[in-house]
Amino acid sequence: MRAELGSLLNHQLESLMAEFKENLLDWLRDAHAMEQQAETMLKGQASRIEHYPVLKARIQEHIQETIGQRELLEGCIKRLGGSPSTIKDVMGKMAAFGQAVGGMTASDEIVKGAMAGYVFEHFEIASYTALIAAAKTAGDAETARVCEQILAQEEAMADWLAAHLPNVTEEFMVRDATPGVEAKK
Amino acid sequence: MRAELGSLLNHQLESLMAEFKENLLDWLRDAHAMEQQAETMLKGQASRIEHYPVLKARIQEHIQETIGQRELLEGCIKRLGGSPSTIKDVMGKMAAFGQAVGGMTASDEIVKGAMAGYVFEHFEIASYTALIAAAKTAGDAETARVCEQILAQEEAMADWLAAHLPNVTEEFMVRDATPGVEAKK
Repeated sequence: MRAELGSLLNHQLESLMAEFKENLLDWLRDAHAMEQQAETMLKGQASRIEHYPVLKARIQEHIQETIGQRELLEGCIKRLGGSPSTIKDVMGKMAAFGQAVGGMTASDEIVKGAMAGYVFEHFEIASYTALIAAAKTAGDAETARVCEQILAQEEAMADWLAAHLPNVTEEFMVRDATPGVEAKK
Repeated sequence: MRAELGSLLNHQLESLMAEFKENLLDWLRDAHAMEQQAETMLKGQASRIEHYPVLKARIQEHIQETIGQRELLEGCIKRLGGSPSTIKDVMGKMAAFGQAVGGMTASDEIVKGAMAGYVFEHFEIASYTALIAAAKTAGDAETARVCEQILAQEEAMADWLAAHLPNVTEEFMVRDATPGVEAKK
């Protein structure tokens, strides 16, 4: 009787862990699609910027980090027996936002772009924060470790953008008010 | 001759300040539209949440703050001689994202919603960070003060969401893995 109960509990625990793993895998796929979108957005931004070399250089640096992050996520997804999938639902809307940012041509695009980059970083920070909790709940220490590593890069990029946004704003305004000087990108 | 030069410089300074003010006013209008969107999004979220009362209560509290922020922005816009306008370009995409979040029905909507709320807060944080720099550049101390006041509320909401996102994620996973228990909202 005790053995049967043990087997029943064991079965329930296995089923619970399988459910946890399924959620974790779903969110890893979302994050993978997000990083693909980030790469497109950042490349679009970097290629458009002309007069703000410091911002451009930091974005270019983050493109390399973003490619590395996507590969790390692929490793986690494969280890869990899944494969990357296409983007869906609300993540798709966020992706459309990223796409709009990458090709933006507003008169103040350098300011809006820096703001949007900061926002997108926090989309990534939220994703990895949830993923770390999910990985821990699912008992997947390796995925938690990888996501913590990526999170640190996203936080560094977000902090950098936050620190530089006031300067970009002021520089844009001064250029914009100076006759014969292009300000927008 | 010296008087003429003084008058010329004075004229240039006035023209510079007018340009600064124009940018500031544009961005205040964007922020106003953003807060309108925030209110719609937050009300949509709060009305859908059933099983996560702590998150629901914090969102309801932030709805009240958001309404107050919109009114504060209206005050700044009127003081500068402008009127609130409709949303445009990339801000419109962010708004569409907020709208999607407010009416979201994904199987994991509580997690995605908490993430999206955190992202939207950083859209607001970026906006006020840029606005504070713009107001200071334009010499508008009152707008800078109002935006700093709003920024503190947005940061508090963002911090709260960041601190609670891991719990929401874990609670969702446990509910989702429990037969007969609804997890999604």
